[in-house]
Amino acid sequence: MSSNVLVIEGDGIGQEIIGQARNALDVLNQQESLNMTFSEAMLGGRAYDQYGHPYPEVTQQKARAADAILFGACGGPKWDGATERHLRPEQGLLDIRADLDLFANFRPAIAFPQLVSSSPLKPEKVAGLDLLIIRELTGGIYFGQPRGIRTLENGERQGFNTDVYSESEVRRIAKVAFEAAMKRNKRVCSVDKANVLEVTVLWREMMEAVAKDYPEVTLTHLYVDNAAMQLVVNPKQFDVIVTGNLFGDILSDEASMITGSIGMLPSASLNEKSTGFYEPIHGSAPDIAGKNIANPLATIMSAAMMLRYSLAAPTAAERLESAVSAVLDRGFRTGDIWSEDSEAQGHKKVSCSEMGDAVVSAL
Amino acid sequence: MSSNVLVIEGDGIGQEIIGQARNALDVLNQQESLNMTFSEAMLGGRAYDQYGHPYPEVTQQKARAADAILFGACGGPKWDGATERHLRPEQGLLDIRADLDLFANFRPAIAFPQLVSSSPLKPEKVAGLDLLIIRELTGGIYFGQPRGIRTLENGERQGFNTDVYSESEVRRIAKVAFEAAMKRNKRVCSVDKANVLEVTVLWREMMEAVAKDYPEVTLTHLYVDNAAMQLVVNPKQFDVIVTGNLFGDILSDEASMITGSIGMLPSASLNEKSTGFYEPIHGSAPDIAGKNIANPLATIMSAAMMLRYSLAAPTAAERLESAVSAVLDRGFRTGDIWSEDSEAQGHKKVSCSEMGDAVVSAL
Ligand SMILES: CC(C)[C@H](C(=O)O)[C@@H](O)C(=O)O
Ligand SMILES: CC(C)[C@H](C(=O)O)[C@@H](O)C(=O)O
Repeated sequence: MSSNVLVIEGDGIGQEIIGQARNALDVLNQQESLNMTFSEAMLGGRAYDQYGHPYPEVTQQKARAADAILFGACGGPKWDGATERHLRPEQGLLDIRADLDLFANFRPAIAFPQLVSSSPLKPEKVAGLDLLIIRELTGGIYFGQPRGIRTLENGERQGFNTDVYSESEVRRIAKVAFEAAMKRNKRVCSVDKANVLEVTVLWREMMEAVAKDYPEVTLTHLYVDNAAMQLVVNPKQFDVIVTGNLFGDILSDEASMITGSIGMLPSASLNEKSTGFYEPIHGSAPDIAGKNIANPLATIMSAAMMLRYSLAAPTAAERLESAVSAVLDRGFRTGDIWSEDSEAQGHKKVSCSEMGDAVVSAL
Repeated sequence: MSSNVLVIEGDGIGQEIIGQARNALDVLNQQESLNMTFSEAMLGGRAYDQYGHPYPEVTQQKARAADAILFGACGGPKWDGATERHLRPEQGLLDIRADLDLFANFRPAIAFPQLVSSSPLKPEKVAGLDLLIIRELTGGIYFGQPRGIRTLENGERQGFNTDVYSESEVRRIAKVAFEAAMKRNKRVCSVDKANVLEVTVLWREMMEAVAKDYPEVTLTHLYVDNAAMQLVVNPKQFDVIVTGNLFGDILSDEASMITGSIGMLPSASLNEKSTGFYEPIHGSAPDIAGKNIANPLATIMSAAMMLRYSLAAPTAAERLESAVSAVLDRGFRTGDIWSEDSEAQGHKKVSCSEMGDAVVSAL
């Protein structure tokens, strides 16, 4: 069975990191007879430049037909403020999430054993950290109506957005979280602000309701302010965290930074049919774009998630992850994961393409 | 000129920590002829038990007449879920904020030099940290209308809240932030999510507008997800952070945990008349209530903020802060700030009242 993979470089370092991931996928495609066929499309700032829209019609067609999408990153100063809101690069990302109904965002926060010393936290706080944040991605205040800026009777303007979740929206993301926990350590922590926000009172209630179908899983709740603290003071207490779109945005970025491995972390956004959108969690890093110094490993790890979740190729996924681990063991480090003790440890500072090549050789 | 201080113990450890702060204030009152007169009132869970409301009428009267309010903490499992939403202890806190228009919440995140090793972060990340978070406290999604849980036509329920800020609301908190920065290192970082939320597009615009009146202050902007990362990876880059109610809730708790000194950190909530509400940022800690082991220093530091901001007694404030520093230097530690190296350093583990007594002797 062949599968149809759409590759989108996006902006900034997107081209470089995707290039390395493609090389690794090409090798696996052959070695494991995966029968992947690749096509390309544009999303974000360059898409806007070329087609006048960050998620152009032609990309929509291809995206809807794809089994999986591998994405680099989007955005950059070139498009900041220059264009109308709905034409900004990030809007392309929000549009494709909505268009493909990619409601379940998986953001693992893993401390790679080889990189523990890069964490701003004390090593004992992060060594062994393996946390999965599941963020609802197509609802909440990101998409809620009404929204906008209006002028009040007294003449002053007022900005407003609506945070909103229905029972069915919470139910489906809850199921995803409990299913994920069943394959892990059977603990789900739901994060809300139920002491203040009604929208999260309903969220909490639905989490409890779905928990009844998973008696083996322990469900706990944390207020978002407390969760932000607990991630810093004791991140290893968590197995699966499930939360809404906005809190998920904040907490997953906080968690990724805690691992010290932000240049390493992948993400997956899935819909009900497991069509997946895979991207590194780091951004487009326009300041280092074109310099061949970006870390391609987060994109390569995203490709591994794609093989596992959307292409039913777990062996290939594992081989790719092992290859990443192997290049770290061999001491290859891009600038972002070069740490104080790298010199002493005899690590080799490598470019984006050298890192990609190292992964290919490890395969 | 005499000043009228309302003291509210609240729930949990509130009674114990307020008791120690009162002892210190009594000494200063005499030594510095401050002419403070004290009265008491209730707010939170015990207020509900006694008056049927977490912010009872009698407390409202006293609060409106006070020059300053010193508060302990509120809430506890006893009242969790047991009562209707608008009667919960935390609602008392939200009510008094709204009633007195306490829109400007000051949350310093300071790493006490004696406690740097208690931080989960590497010492070099936090040593010398002195950051002030200014959180808008009476607007945004905490108070926005409409809000609630409704039933849709298809029969399912939907929870909703409204995040809303008007120009004048942003303008007044912006002024507070810029004024604070003028007395510090002249840098303001405004945190928003202007790439997604219109309410924060207006926020950002107003920040820029107010910045024009403070040419000496450098204004920068961060998206909230990035801010949550930057606080972990390099908290010392910040001077003043200003943000809305919800983001302020999350980021100030995250920042407090980073300092390693959460049992030490005070807060002030002010209105236009500088009537202030002062409270430790830690909670009511029901698990250790009544055991005389809580750390009273955050409350004592809050009393110092009260002396400075609402009672125009800067000398007394400084003396109180120096006394706190002195007891730390002398090695006094409550359980929460007892660290791995405390034994080796010859620190003395003390109770809540012993810590309070130590501050009084240092005065
Ligand atoms: C670019 C932005 C719209 C996006 C978000 O807020 O969801 C990003 O921060 C992310 O987390 O993927
Ligand atoms: C208790 C709760 C309502 C409150 C808030 O969210 O504002 C608390 O977390 C705080 O930060 O003072």
